[in-house]
Amino acid sequence: MSTPAHPSDSTPSRPLGVAAIGYAFMGKAHSNAWRNVASFFDVPAFEQKVLVGRDADAVAEAAARYGWAESATDWRTVIERDDIDIVDICAPGWMHAEIAVAALAAGKHVLVEKPLANTLAEAELMTAAAAKARAGGVQSMIGFNYRRVPALALARELIAEGRLGTVRHVRAAYLQDWLADAQAPMTWRLRKETAGSGALGDIASHAIDQVLFLLGGEVNEVTGRLNTFVDRRPGENGLEDVTVDDAAWATLSLASGAIASVEVSRVATGRKNSLQIEVYGDKGSLLFDLENLNELGFLDATLPVREQGFRRILVNEPEHPYIEAWWPQGHIIGWEHTFTHQVRDFLLAVRDGTQPSPSFEEGLNVQHILSAVEESAANKSTLTVVRR
Amino acid sequence: MSTPAHPSDSTPSRPLGVAAIGYAFMGKAHSNAWRNVASFFDVPAFEQKVLVGRDADAVAEAAARYGWAESATDWRTVIERDDIDIVDICAPGWMHAEIAVAALAAGKHVLVEKPLANTLAEAELMTAAAAKARAGGVQSMIGFNYRRVPALALARELIAEGRLGTVRHVRAAYLQDWLADAQAPMTWRLRKETAGSGALGDIASHAIDQVLFLLGGEVNEVTGRLNTFVDRRPGENGLEDVTVDDAAWATLSLASGAIASVEVSRVATGRKNSLQIEVYGDKGSLLFDLENLNELGFLDATLPVREQGFRRILVNEPEHPYIEAWWPQGHIIGWEHTFTHQVRDFLLAVRDGTQPSPSFEEGLNVQHILSAVEESAANKSTLTVVRR
Amino acid sequence: MSTPAHPSDSTPSRPLGVAAIGYAFMGKAHSNAWRNVASFFDVPAFEQKVLVGRDADAVAEAAARYGWAESATDWRTVIERDDIDIVDICAPGWMHAEIAVAALAAGKHVLVEKPLANTLAEAELMTAAAAKARAGGVQSMIGFNYRRVPALALARELIAEGRLGTVRHVRAAYLQDWLADAQAPMTWRLRKETAGSGALGDIASHAIDQVLFLLGGEVNEVTGRLNTFVDRRPGENGLEDVTVDDAAWATLSLASGAIASVEVSRVATGRKNSLQIEVYGDKGSLLFDLENLNELGFLDATLPVREQGFRRILVNEPEHPYIEAWWPQGHIIGWEHTFTHQVRDFLLAVRDGTQPSPSFEEGLNVQHILSAVEESAANKSTLTVVRR
Amino acid sequence: MSTPAHPSDSTPSRPLGVAAIGYAFMGKAHSNAWRNVASFFDVPAFEQKVLVGRDADAVAEAAARYGWAESATDWRTVIERDDIDIVDICAPGWMHAEIAVAALAAGKHVLVEKPLANTLAEAELMTAAAAKARAGGVQSMIGFNYRRVPALALARELIAEGRLGTVRHVRAAYLQDWLADAQAPMTWRLRKETAGSGALGDIASHAIDQVLFLLGGEVNEVTGRLNTFVDRRPGENGLEDVTVDDAAWATLSLASGAIASVEVSRVATGRKNSLQIEVYGDKGSLLFDLENLNELGFLDATLPVREQGFRRILVNEPEHPYIEAWWPQGHIIGWEHTFTHQVRDFLLAVRDGTQPSPSFEEGLNVQHILSAVEESAANKSTLTVVRR
Repeated sequence: MSTPAHPSDSTPSRPLGVAAIGYAFMGKAHSNAWRNVASFFDVPAFEQKVLVGRDADAVAEAAARYGWAESATDWRTVIERDDIDIVDICAPGWMHAEIAVAALAAGKHVLVEKPLANTLAEAELMTAAAAKARAGGVQSMIGFNYRRVPALALARELIAEGRLGTVRHVRAAYLQDWLADAQAPMTWRLRKETAGSGALGDIASHAIDQVLFLLGGEVNEVTGRLNTFVDRRPGENGLEDVTVDDAAWATLSLASGAIASVEVSRVATGRKNSLQIEVYGDKGSLLFDLENLNELGFLDATLPVREQGFRRILVNEPEHPYIEAWWPQGHIIGWEHTFTHQVRDFLLAVRDGTQPSPSFEEGLNVQHILSAVEESAANKSTLTVVRR
Repeated sequence: MSTPAHPSDSTPSRPLGVAAIGYAFMGKAHSNAWRNVASFFDVPAFEQKVLVGRDADAVAEAAARYGWAESATDWRTVIERDDIDIVDICAPGWMHAEIAVAALAAGKHVLVEKPLANTLAEAELMTAAAAKARAGGVQSMIGFNYRRVPALALARELIAEGRLGTVRHVRAAYLQDWLADAQAPMTWRLRKETAGSGALGDIASHAIDQVLFLLGGEVNEVTGRLNTFVDRRPGENGLEDVTVDDAAWATLSLASGAIASVEVSRVATGRKNSLQIEVYGDKGSLLFDLENLNELGFLDATLPVREQGFRRILVNEPEHPYIEAWWPQGHIIGWEHTFTHQVRDFLLAVRDGTQPSPSFEEGLNVQHILSAVEESAANKSTLTVVRR
Repeated sequence: MSTPAHPSDSTPSRPLGVAAIGYAFMGKAHSNAWRNVASFFDVPAFEQKVLVGRDADAVAEAAARYGWAESATDWRTVIERDDIDIVDICAPGWMHAEIAVAALAAGKHVLVEKPLANTLAEAELMTAAAAKARAGGVQSMIGFNYRRVPALALARELIAEGRLGTVRHVRAAYLQDWLADAQAPMTWRLRKETAGSGALGDIASHAIDQVLFLLGGEVNEVTGRLNTFVDRRPGENGLEDVTVDDAAWATLSLASGAIASVEVSRVATGRKNSLQIEVYGDKGSLLFDLENLNELGFLDATLPVREQGFRRILVNEPEHPYIEAWWPQGHIIGWEHTFTHQVRDFLLAVRDGTQPSPSFEEGLNVQHILSAVEESAANKSTLTVVRR
Repeated sequence: MSTPAHPSDSTPSRPLGVAAIGYAFMGKAHSNAWRNVASFFDVPAFEQKVLVGRDADAVAEAAARYGWAESATDWRTVIERDDIDIVDICAPGWMHAEIAVAALAAGKHVLVEKPLANTLAEAELMTAAAAKARAGGVQSMIGFNYRRVPALALARELIAEGRLGTVRHVRAAYLQDWLADAQAPMTWRLRKETAGSGALGDIASHAIDQVLFLLGGEVNEVTGRLNTFVDRRPGENGLEDVTVDDAAWATLSLASGAIASVEVSRVATGRKNSLQIEVYGDKGSLLFDLENLNELGFLDATLPVREQGFRRILVNEPEHPYIEAWWPQGHIIGWEHTFTHQVRDFLLAVRDGTQPSPSFEEGLNVQHILSAVEESAANKSTLTVVRR
């Protein structure tokens, strides 16, 4: 293995070389972001060098479709290539740790999809690797893409500016319904050994990350509850046991005194991709729903009572985060550009040699909270969040 | 006929005596208002003396149900009674003029349901009678009850305070669907000779009155269009001709330079009682829908662009018009109380000897505009509104 | 004390005599219901005999305002009167048990505002008294008025008809903001000794009753959490301790396997009286918000996917529960008529000699669940609901 | 000029060569569509050959940014190139006719932004050229991109399937506010000689095209009204006259008997890009707003009254038009992909040798209607639509 060079030394000389690993749902979303970011944002020059996947034909077809110069099947070789500066990991969660640690060791900047890893042990290993690499100028970031929804970025600004005053409580929910049908078949996502967890890891992670993103601070204590409404589903050999949750509930106590409730479900019939966030402060409140991601609800309680009300801000003005790059006001953007914005912010951090956010430490923090929720549910008791 | 006494002289000595004429839909709504107003508002003492209707049994039953001390079948006798001070006319439109003129002549304060009359000639007669009576201290008012929706009263306040700046245009619509079914039977409401007009007189009148209520000023010019989508309906002797419009469109030019569009329909499937009003000014805008009558949408364009948006004001705070009398915040009120507020305002005007609003003149003004719309539609040309 | 007569024997001979105890917020709401119910519904004849309160002048004024024939200050005397058949208890919670037990013993039908009582012991005493009285034909009912919101009555019908299939989970929240301001002063409602509890007893009780009303069945297990965000408020002698919760969170496990989450708050800035209920089944879902109480959201998942969506049913058609009595379609009703409907249903049950619902047993059941939530919060552990 | 080859003969041999003319707002939107269409849809092979603009440096920069192989400043040369098969015209309206006619004559397939042209005469010339070219296998299309909003495509399907029964009336509005500020400066868009018309041509054209797209059939008669609320704006030499409308109103009578109202404004404060469409039939109704373009409101009036209501269909399922290519359900798409879909449909038509829709004839038809609206406004009278 070559000694990790300070990327900042080499960056100016040629465009950054990017490799992505994975071409399924998240691979498609990340590839699309790489393909489009430079059309809209001023980012350092880069090239979509190589897309990696296990099936040679399929990955070649995907590479052609999404603008990658080549495809490959062996990620190990790719992350050692001198012309690769950035590794974007969209492979399944159980592969994250091995790839990320190796890529960081090879001196590559790493962007990894959430969740950081399937186990706390792996997540801790990755975080340690990231800390070490950072000392050598190598950046790393976890892909909680909803931090890049303009409306949520605006929400964070408003909270940081004190427009909500003291935040008392947050209601966060992530509701989907793709498992509402009891006859929906068994998949690897419904087995604990392959998926790690169910709705909790998959979507509560987003909700919890948003609580941390919006409010900042630490979660000290949690209560948790998990449930599997459909505990047997048709598999290849008849009914098989579902071993992960399809809904979860939690409350989180923040160091600030705020409390957040979290509720997630994959059986909430009629809710398609509804990450709902409500933030209540003593001077104002915010509302958000990912199914209408171009809107933010805001109530300013410092106005005269007579004219108070939740306003629907169409977060589509040049004054709003990320929007100046896009279309004139009122021409809404789609879900996919949360990834475009993510890649933009990652590239700028790489260029500037600054730590992109959220870091692996932040990803690990979410993992700790999820783990505490799971343990609280198992113990039927409130639990203090333990960290390293 | 006794010489009309100055009511202000007699009022203090005993509670005002009220007679209502009509006990169908509007009679029920008005009766309910009389029955409840004093439970919530401080109004001069009055008594629900007598309810008048043609069917002796039915009106007796209605009188008992809605709190009237007695019932009667001959309105002429009733309006001459010394113990009657107020006559509330809820009879069909073609009876308005005769009753109102007689009641005013008898020195009774008169509240009359909209429309003022079925014809312009009748409306002008009534207005002349009202002007004469007013000189003798006898008050009169037309029942455009939606002026008393708290949200619309708030809308008027905001406009009057300049919160919308210069109002450019208004979009007003009144959409219902009770005639959407082509098999809905023929009724007197669908014949020109009994109903005067269709959607135009019945519901466009409300929409136009709101334009005048909210913006003030005069309408100088109109364009109009009428249509009857279902022109034959099943009657007692087979299919009969529908001779009134079931939808109408108009634009009104106000003296201020503002333009209002009006669209009304009784065949707008799925719209039940949707009086929608949008007001656009250079500093702000308002939205309203009668199906959510406790809410007002307000956009304040003087705020920073970043935080502009239509807010949903739940018009249910003690700070809002009429609301202090009711329930704590967020406990919404129903459609019926537009009438309760109307009776309250009428009673206060009677007590104070002031002209209640809207006056017969204002009702006549609406009639002139409706008439011009109808003529414009017939002529297929823009029309100047002609007044006496 | 006179021997309790079988009311069914005496009812036919004369109108039922009604006494109400209390004339504050709930007294006003109940009085208004008594005053109006017979104008809209066919109910057995009754008379508003007497309103009882501690302040003689104030109660006399209230009696006159709300249509009571007389007023009184001693409830003990009133409930013994031969001309009183029904006692409606709107006094504070700590008085419920004593009055209700005495009234039932005196053979009077009793309607009591929620919560049933401030303590479980009192609630059990009342329930025993109600059971005994019921054997003698004396009826009793607790006033969970939101069961009489037409939209929620429709929701229950749809669930009972199987339109939602198997209900998996419910999200119930009751959000208000009248304590959002940290400077809002101390009151008896914020002291445990006078109020029993805070948001939990006051508003979570409604949310929990709705879960039971809509789904039926038993709650077996709960998790709970309470919080007081503002723990000191200005009182007459400076800052005083707030000893009740201003927000609460719970999950309830139903015998059916369904899980309900409950979240309530008095500091949810911008939420005025927002009882929100979402019910998710495998064949459909429902949405409700008390701030728009004339609407019910319904998604029918048995329709083709292409045309599925939450529909906003304006629950204002003659086909809908309670609505035929009111106004034509689209003319919405107000919050107050949940009480009108409640009185109507109570009167019909008294007439028919049937048990009105919800019974004191149902009220006690809610108290048991609230008590378990409180204990779970104190113990920081999941708790089994214990019943007598 | 070379003899127009039959493109169908040459297409198979190599990827289609595409040239785009214009790189401002519409050029950016079209370029983005060309750049992304093949990542999501199976379309014939093509290459983004050349982007044309007047400013050599700016167009070169734009070409690089949006994925064009080269840039050029002379469109005449480009449309003669043998390696160019498709010309996409995004230049200002006054250039459309000259370029389109020349490109068609050169045997190139042409996609042209709306409006077809600034004058009727030009539009007729273009339509004649398109008809002639079509005979030689050369296709042409006008870019009413909102036909490719999935929700509106679904709306058309539902109407075509008879789900709305007989359509009675349509309410179409296109509301923006970028001219609400009276101090917004003078531009070429506000002069009749450069822009042709104001809100009428720019946005009423979209609304009218939707009426035709959704309902089909011919418009026979119109009423029109135009207004300029701010008739002088600050220019380089002080206040200058605004010579186009900033708001317009029309009614259209369709051959079917349906009537559509159209209202457009650039001064509707708070409305950013709100193309609102409501369609009322005797069996159902539809609602749409471009600011929430992933949603369609649908009311099915054939369901029992008890459960009727407007449903919000999140048009994001694989079963919906265009959506299978995108993301899983509930992951909404942005405004830009109306162009992606447009390019996809255009490419498929070119491949199949079929006429893409909307044709130049359809564009001309919209121009005729706009012209009649303008004339009706000028004449203050209803007008019959005249066609060639």
